[in-house]
Amino acid sequence: MTAAFLTSELAEQPHVVERLLQRQRESIADAAASARAAGVRHVLIAARGTSDNVARYAQHVFGRFLGLPVALASPSLNTLYWAPPRLERTLVIGISQSGESPDVCAVVRDARGQGMPTVAITNEAASPLAAASAVTIDIGAGAERSVAATKTYTASLAAIAALTVELADERALSDELAAVAGAMQRQIELGTGAAADVFAGVERCVVAGRGPNYATAFEAALKIKELTGIAAEPYSPADLMHGPVAMLGRGSPLIALAAAGPALASVLDALREAAARGAPSIAVTDAPDAVAAGAAIVGLVSVAEWLSPLVAILPAQLLAAQLALGRGVEIDTPFGLSKVTRTV
Amino acid sequence: MTAAFLTSELAEQPHVVERLLQRQRESIADAAASARAAGVRHVLIAARGTSDNVARYAQHVFGRFLGLPVALASPSLNTLYWAPPRLERTLVIGISQSGESPDVCAVVRDARGQGMPTVAITNEAASPLAAASAVTIDIGAGAERSVAATKTYTASLAAIAALTVELADERALSDELAAVAGAMQRQIELGTGAAADVFAGVERCVVAGRGPNYATAFEAALKIKELTGIAAEPYSPADLMHGPVAMLGRGSPLIALAAAGPALASVLDALREAAARGAPSIAVTDAPDAVAAGAAIVGLVSVAEWLSPLVAILPAQLLAAQLALGRGVEIDTPFGLSKVTRTV
Repeated sequence: MTAAFLTSELAEQPHVVERLLQRQRESIADAAASARAAGVRHVLIAARGTSDNVARYAQHVFGRFLGLPVALASPSLNTLYWAPPRLERTLVIGISQSGESPDVCAVVRDARGQGMPTVAITNEAASPLAAASAVTIDIGAGAERSVAATKTYTASLAAIAALTVELADERALSDELAAVAGAMQRQIELGTGAAADVFAGVERCVVAGRGPNYATAFEAALKIKELTGIAAEPYSPADLMHGPVAMLGRGSPLIALAAAGPALASVLDALREAAARGAPSIAVTDAPDAVAAGAAIVGLVSVAEWLSPLVAILPAQLLAAQLALGRGVEIDTPFGLSKVTRTV
Repeated sequence: MTAAFLTSELAEQPHVVERLLQRQRESIADAAASARAAGVRHVLIAARGTSDNVARYAQHVFGRFLGLPVALASPSLNTLYWAPPRLERTLVIGISQSGESPDVCAVVRDARGQGMPTVAITNEAASPLAAASAVTIDIGAGAERSVAATKTYTASLAAIAALTVELADERALSDELAAVAGAMQRQIELGTGAAADVFAGVERCVVAGRGPNYATAFEAALKIKELTGIAAEPYSPADLMHGPVAMLGRGSPLIALAAAGPALASVLDALREAAARGAPSIAVTDAPDAVAAGAAIVGLVSVAEWLSPLVAILPAQLLAAQLALGRGVEIDTPFGLSKVTRTV
């Protein structure tokens, strides 16, 4: 059994985030300055897979603290249809750990050609994406050898959070961000208790999160899918109630990301609906008293709600790894996947 | 057995689309005029569930023909976090068949308060959403009594397509749109052949589509989930290859939306990957010669590629209904769902 890379990379996350926040001050300040100089009023993000979930997080925090609407690029417009959008006062961010994705590069390159400020968030400072972008935030996570991204995900979230702090220029946010690496460390030490027991014999599940943790729902579902092969569906509780709630049932548990904050009530609704349908559930929460009896509780180390995605993803990563090991999956290269996908 | 509403509503679609294109010329012209008068350079769409998939279609066609970047709203910013985005030269479209969704209304209301042009696409001209919007495109689909949306989906797509034609002001696009209702009629008459056989004993599947049919992949997966309870996952083939491809296998078929056009090659890649993993597949295609042997072919009636989503969703709706009936699901009210969800 050589379950090496995923486990150690997962454990490195608090350190990686702390280091990024120290070492990338300058590039983050440059990115913010270029956005300000351009009088930016819109954000366009190009990303794929795990990085797409970083973009979902950016959509929340840029909207909430900066009033900026965030569009996710449709890269096929750039690469297949030769119709890049015409941009105006738009900050364009490409997110790719490898920096290799040709379609993400194409979006950034086309935007830079239109004179827009461009930022790469990548783990490879010498990558095509970094070369295509005016500013590079090097997340400096070190080699990520497991196919399933862990530390590059949380490091990219931290880069987005730091850019938000820089643009919002609010001391309170800055202090909150400084506390997050310590909370991540405690979260990893907490583990997942007996949560994995809920998944005995399970082949599908639903993950629900809202507000900042809408992104966490998508990333948690992606980790579970790629590591275990279990069909995991991410939803905002609001969308879940629109039809897909039909999926919940005895063999189809709910994982609810129930961080204390404005989105909590809606996530609790989903937990109640799961109970009503006889579906077992796991609540990742720092508000355990608010969760109705029956759900397996995974304690969430409290941070400012807007930063909770950096902490709340950790038990999901741990759980996915645990389930994968239990199923005999080779967790560093599950199902014969390879790391970089070069999609045009 | 009273499988009434879904089946008849599904069959009404060509007529509903044709009627909308005739009757809503004026409101569509008004919507376009308001966007032009505001010098619109961005689009923000608020929608949930099926309507979210209409927004995905708009993202493609507005980008491709009008150069407009499209952002999907995060309504929780308006309703839970009291932080509506600050908009500028942005056309804001609310899409909701019932027009009741409070969070969609909130996005439109906040945008109108900021002086942005606002458009409702709804089946209820007297709804709160219509009242909140400066212009209403009444899709006029008639009562939709089945929980699973069919005709309101394709009618909303048609509204987006017509608005695109009006803003692009290109005669060729207009002629192409005029041909779509006839093609839809022929598609419904074609049925789905033996495609349902692929689903014997299946509890999960993947739906892949790109370009305009990225939206179709999401809507097809939603129909399958809500009508049958089968866990259906929608993907761009580009994202699928990034990890979730691990889900494909003997018991987990692929439905590929393989319309002839720039996105076809990438969808064919996904079909090849499915075959390599021993997963059965269904190709909905007007390019059957390009599809490798082994896939079950569902013929797609040819229309201009940008309009193929109006046609390609029909076999998926038919298939979902067929599978649901085979599983003994009460298809008008599957799994005890109700029609309108009032999410704040």
